[in-house]
Amino acid sequence: MAVPNFTQNELDEIYAFAVDLGRKAGDLLMERVELRISGGEGNSQKFEEKDSSVDIVTQTDEDVEVFIRNALQTKYPTHKYVLPSDQWRLITVTNKLKDQRFLGEESYAKGSSRDYLIDEHPTWCIDPLDGTVNYTHIFPMFCVSIGFIVNHKPVIGVIYAPFQDQLFSSCTGRGAWLNEKRQLPLIRKPSIPPMPANAPSQCVFSCEWGKDRRDIPDGNMHRKIESFVNMAAELGSRGGKGGMVHGVRSLGSATLDLAYTAMGSFDIWWEGGCWEWDVAAGIAILLEAGGLVTTANPPEDPDTAPIEDMRLGSRLYLAIRPAGPSETETGRETQERTVREVWRRVRHLSYTRPGA
Amino acid sequence: MAVPNFTQNELDEIYAFAVDLGRKAGDLLMERVELRISGGEGNSQKFEEKDSSVDIVTQTDEDVEVFIRNALQTKYPTHKYVLPSDQWRLITVTNKLKDQRFLGEESYAKGSSRDYLIDEHPTWCIDPLDGTVNYTHIFPMFCVSIGFIVNHKPVIGVIYAPFQDQLFSSCTGRGAWLNEKRQLPLIRKPSIPPMPANAPSQCVFSCEWGKDRRDIPDGNMHRKIESFVNMAAELGSRGGKGGMVHGVRSLGSATLDLAYTAMGSFDIWWEGGCWEWDVAAGIAILLEAGGLVTTANPPEDPDTAPIEDMRLGSRLYLAIRPAGPSETETGRETQERTVREVWRRVRHLSYTRPGA
Repeated sequence: MAVPNFTQNELDEIYAFAVDLGRKAGDLLMERVELRISGGEGNSQKFEEKDSSVDIVTQTDEDVEVFIRNALQTKYPTHKYVLPSDQWRLITVTNKLKDQRFLGEESYAKGSSRDYLIDEHPTWCIDPLDGTVNYTHIFPMFCVSIGFIVNHKPVIGVIYAPFQDQLFSSCTGRGAWLNEKRQLPLIRKPSIPPMPANAPSQCVFSCEWGKDRRDIPDGNMHRKIESFVNMAAELGSRGGKGGMVHGVRSLGSATLDLAYTAMGSFDIWWEGGCWEWDVAAGIAILLEAGGLVTTANPPEDPDTAPIEDMRLGSRLYLAIRPAGPSETETGRETQERTVREVWRRVRHLSYTRPGA
Repeated sequence: MAVPNFTQNELDEIYAFAVDLGRKAGDLLMERVELRISGGEGNSQKFEEKDSSVDIVTQTDEDVEVFIRNALQTKYPTHKYVLPSDQWRLITVTNKLKDQRFLGEESYAKGSSRDYLIDEHPTWCIDPLDGTVNYTHIFPMFCVSIGFIVNHKPVIGVIYAPFQDQLFSSCTGRGAWLNEKRQLPLIRKPSIPPMPANAPSQCVFSCEWGKDRRDIPDGNMHRKIESFVNMAAELGSRGGKGGMVHGVRSLGSATLDLAYTAMGSFDIWWEGGCWEWDVAAGIAILLEAGGLVTTANPPEDPDTAPIEDMRLGSRLYLAIRPAGPSETETGRETQERTVREVWRRVRHLSYTRPGA
């Protein structure tokens, strides 16, 4: 049993509950879309400014968080909600779920602080609506994201994108799944291929422009763009940094970026600036599928630095899809080689936590 | 009757046939995906180099084109196929469909020339598989695209993305639809909103990195990137060009970019370098839904230049979603205002046709 203090049966029960919860929360998101399409809802106009004009939150976002919290409470009536500050809510669990915490994006955003609140306790880390901009524009790439973390490790992940009825899920020991019937990753031909020998060439590269659009020389936006261009440009160009990736994709949802990386659709996802609730479920699924996640920021010597596991609260992520062995390398070796090739081409990003 | 030489009944029949054909061709694409997922197909390995390492074509691509041609032949046995050169095939139609031509991407690509072959005759312009890179990586954003053009005007469009079972379609006089039941655009609240007063701010901007990754100073790649950054950067930055769009999206499928613009999910799509078979169906659907398409390349005076209809073979497209009136402007005026705001921020792209 890889997860401390939980039997597989207990985990299975939580997993089934989380899948059901994700599907219901996604259906609620979709119900509101249906109302907007039929013209029946005034709510869609009630946007509220968050950090900037590209970070809006809808009433739906908050309603779905309330729904999720209530569902947890109904399922486990002995849970307690403790609100140590306005910034976040703590669920202390007195039954089998022990001391479980609930972190939802909206709970954080109401306050000014976004301290990293996850410790070794079992913690629910949830984004009721990832891809808010997509949601407000009715672009299908939005989803609910539910992660369950034990001892800093995401052990259960559920991502449901209701417009396309795609449910990605995983539980430690139970594999990673699309719609509970197809095992991830999907790409097999006939088994999971290694990362390409000349990666990042031949890779689909997933990245996001994000919300920090300040036009500061050498600021994050320009560092991101420079990194994107290095990954995209023809081989040998840009002082050897040209990576000639097969394609560059931006969906506007970190959660779905990770889900598609777990699926094998994307080979590489590189991102800075998102938060733990954006990635907790996706990282659980990616890791269970056989993917690798480390830091987006290149170390001083990308050729030899150890490739460490990502820190969930780091806001800096580099994910590589699951990979099988090549004739000369293990799958993990092909992934690590790809990590180093990405690190050679990307810039250091500067994202801190407020107050940190 | 807006379409010369066709009654609405004749168009309706062609429309129904095209929808059925699109669905069947998409199902064929999906069958091959299923085989790859289950490990049963060696075909998936048989990639053939096209123009560059980012332009691969699968056997499936060609097979689906053959399927579509055969289906046309079966439905209309009096059609003739005339092959005036190795580069393309001409279908001369002797029945009600008159003189109809069939242009498919694979037919073009086999030869060296990509002359623009569409004239005033009724012409089928088809991409059996748009989003080839997505398809080979099993990222769901791939589709079949079937356009029917009369007198240079796309009058019927069918786009089917089988992985997500999304079928976009339109016929002049019959509206534009998602899955033949929801009218496009989807965004209503309660009626189609105008383009934002401060567009491109608040807009979702769709664009593609494309296949031309040559690292030439002031080449197309760098002009594209500069344009993307102008659209994304905070308002007032970059010498007034900062557009602070709500989000930047890249799906890797020009056809689906247009479909989502017709749906209202994307507000602006700006692209250079794709071909008429990538856009014919999408433009038909967008126009029928109330969208606007003009050239990607800004004229000398973007403030006053006439906003002309796109030329299908121009390889340069700027599409604006359907829009309703504001308190002071017609929907069309809000679209044209947005076109000018985009033109102020983007660079001139240089895409010619081989031989042109």
